[in-house]
Amino acid sequence: MIEQSLLLTDAYELSMLEAYRAHGMAEIAVFELFFRKLPPERGFLLAAGLEQAVEFLQNLRFGAEELDWLAASGLFAPDFVASLAEFRFTGDVDAVPEGTVVFADEPVLRVIAPLPQAQLVETRLLNLVHFQTVIATKAARVVLAAPGKQLVDFGLRRAHGAEAGLLAARASYLAGFGGTATLQASRDFGIPAIGTMAHSYVQAHDDEAAAFEYFARVRPRVLTLLIDTYNTERGARIVAALAPRLAAEGVTVGAVRLDSGDLAAHARAVRAILDDAGQPNIRIFASGGLDEYSVQALCNADAPIEGFGVGTALTTSSDVPALDCAYKLQEYAGTPRRKRSEGKATWPGRKQVYRRYAPDGTILSDTVALLDELVAGEPLLQPAMRGGLPVPSLTGLAEARTRAAASLAQLPPPLRRLEKADVPVEISPGLRALAARLDRDNAA
Amino acid sequence: MIEQSLLLTDAYELSMLEAYRAHGMAEIAVFELFFRKLPPERGFLLAAGLEQAVEFLQNLRFGAEELDWLAASGLFAPDFVASLAEFRFTGDVDAVPEGTVVFADEPVLRVIAPLPQAQLVETRLLNLVHFQTVIATKAARVVLAAPGKQLVDFGLRRAHGAEAGLLAARASYLAGFGGTATLQASRDFGIPAIGTMAHSYVQAHDDEAAAFEYFARVRPRVLTLLIDTYNTERGARIVAALAPRLAAEGVTVGAVRLDSGDLAAHARAVRAILDDAGQPNIRIFASGGLDEYSVQALCNADAPIEGFGVGTALTTSSDVPALDCAYKLQEYAGTPRRKRSEGKATWPGRKQVYRRYAPDGTILSDTVALLDELVAGEPLLQPAMRGGLPVPSLTGLAEARTRAAASLAQLPPPLRRLEKADVPVEISPGLRALAARLDRDNAA
Repeated sequence: MIEQSLLLTDAYELSMLEAYRAHGMAEIAVFELFFRKLPPERGFLLAAGLEQAVEFLQNLRFGAEELDWLAASGLFAPDFVASLAEFRFTGDVDAVPEGTVVFADEPVLRVIAPLPQAQLVETRLLNLVHFQTVIATKAARVVLAAPGKQLVDFGLRRAHGAEAGLLAARASYLAGFGGTATLQASRDFGIPAIGTMAHSYVQAHDDEAAAFEYFARVRPRVLTLLIDTYNTERGARIVAALAPRLAAEGVTVGAVRLDSGDLAAHARAVRAILDDAGQPNIRIFASGGLDEYSVQALCNADAPIEGFGVGTALTTSSDVPALDCAYKLQEYAGTPRRKRSEGKATWPGRKQVYRRYAPDGTILSDTVALLDELVAGEPLLQPAMRGGLPVPSLTGLAEARTRAAASLAQLPPPLRRLEKADVPVEISPGLRALAARLDRDNAA
Repeated sequence: MIEQSLLLTDAYELSMLEAYRAHGMAEIAVFELFFRKLPPERGFLLAAGLEQAVEFLQNLRFGAEELDWLAASGLFAPDFVASLAEFRFTGDVDAVPEGTVVFADEPVLRVIAPLPQAQLVETRLLNLVHFQTVIATKAARVVLAAPGKQLVDFGLRRAHGAEAGLLAARASYLAGFGGTATLQASRDFGIPAIGTMAHSYVQAHDDEAAAFEYFARVRPRVLTLLIDTYNTERGARIVAALAPRLAAEGVTVGAVRLDSGDLAAHARAVRAILDDAGQPNIRIFASGGLDEYSVQALCNADAPIEGFGVGTALTTSSDVPALDCAYKLQEYAGTPRRKRSEGKATWPGRKQVYRRYAPDGTILSDTVALLDELVAGEPLLQPAMRGGLPVPSLTGLAEARTRAAASLAQLPPPLRRLEKADVPVEISPGLRALAARLDRDNAA
């Protein structure tokens, strides 16, 4: 499903490969992908995107047309372009499984491979892991804000292109959403497809009641009627009058959808109209510019709403559409490496994250340590690929969704309430010592 | 290049089609796509995405595999799914040409087609036109902030998936960027590919000077050296010492790139180091979390920087990752239609936008009017498709880029300075009268 062209990369990756090749630099490199400081709007991240990252690495090769274009482009020397025909990914990947809560500065994915391989995959690995982690995190916040509610991804139309819409549906389902409006996401990922009707459907009819009745007769299975095209309460009264007639034919109105105005006030008015008409089983579903804050406010206000469609704010993560993440060289040819650019220095070497829990299962603290240090806690990074082949146990959307529910339940209560709280992420003594030694060597 | 599956749509589009089919509703429908109120961060929009929208409509059909999946999904009746095999778009499209400045409430695209056709295409049309317009607008702001500077899209890694990265490259080139780092965008759209080197390249070498020298010998054509991996000024001194030696071999260092710290201060220090070493022709290129505001500040401060790589802020439009846009039914079977949902009421009927200019060419005001009203000004919507086939004269990236430069030059000076200013968008008397009549009829 996802785009697989190896030209979906930054030009400089190939420039560097050309230089590496000219100087025979193909020793083993270790790159790690991590998120830097989180913005104030985010207290945790939910790791996602690993399955697509593994799929990308496993299928990585230059097609004949791509090589022809590269050769014709004049950007690279012909013998270098020819050498790319045999290019494959043969390395190892360790990663934090999808659906695991992570924090800033923690490596979420490590690639160990010959330098050209590990280098080339940088752009697309970041592109895949960053985006799904951004969306899974946003979705997790909505899930935490609305316990027990039905949540549906409505965001394809304002997602950033096709792949964004599809992967946002996946990432939000992973985080605990119950379904998506996007049919292709339902096909590609097995997510329940959920849909109602648009205002245009109601408008196309001269009469709102007739529009509802026609729809109900044709599509009786999953029946939600959109009632705010002209006047929400009038729409509710039409449904209240229609529902008994439809019931006599065996058609059940499952829900009404509100999409505008003061949703809490409308929901209460509509609930009263439906209850007074003896229709307590017709549920109320709301949409329209919702995010975790408005959903939380509606839940806190006990608005009689059973489900929410969340669109733009979800699929663009509108308050935090991007996070500061990086994929950095930590070791080459057995020697640890450290970037020291101002404000962007990295921790060198091959690392693991160890997590400790309180007796009730709440996350207490994490430690980022060198792989060979002895540190208490649960190691988060696990084998995802060996010798270019996937370790099957680590991927799978259903497993990731189960894991996400468990991992979110381990968050400290303030983070579960979308409040600000810091989980301590400690840097191990061994890692600090290594960084200090590299800085001394480099300054010398 | 772009995703073409018709399953890339909201489930409800097909639900509505099923209901339309059951009741023989296939009269001509008129839908218009427009942007609602702009956020405070945006004073204008740059229309983009039409070429991909037309490509989508022209190639629109359900594949056999898609129909098989729909039939197996149980979401829709078998005879309805079977009827989709013949589905094509045969309608007319009028649109504001790409690269034209537009404002809130102005229709940018109109579809006139049998109701099922015009309905089904809603989700993907919005997805394509919204995203590219968001990005072209953001890019235009960077272009206005940095007159005469080289601007390059660096944003694939944090774009929202593959298509977002590719279409952001296109939209930013349309708006006046000079190139992109994304190779596939260069191939697909003919945009110049521009690349330098990453910190990992420098780190992989034990010695920074050697890293530069190797790179220069292998890739002498477009040579930019990244100098901030360890210490920016030290990097500049290494380049200053290396450049004469390389020049003796016929290799010219074109530029150095700064990617961290106080870019203005580093640029001045680096400029002095290079000038003192007799290297005034080595240009300075900057990147690292830039947006239109930081670029404007660097230009206003006369920082000696000749070009900027803009990444995340551009390809996610990070301050405004989504705009409020809609695709609404304005007429069905010859009768104008009006949605009246609270805060989301639409202007009914088939409309045109007329633009008026001051003698010096500056945009004075626009009028949104009914198609058959007589209004002074230049009509913005032009034929883009007739009978399901493209009107070729209206698309083309090169033409759109030329148009964008001209249209941005017509913006009132405050908008060109990224300040807030309102260009009056008037609603014609005929349109107001029609809306009032429909509201009366509906209330009656």
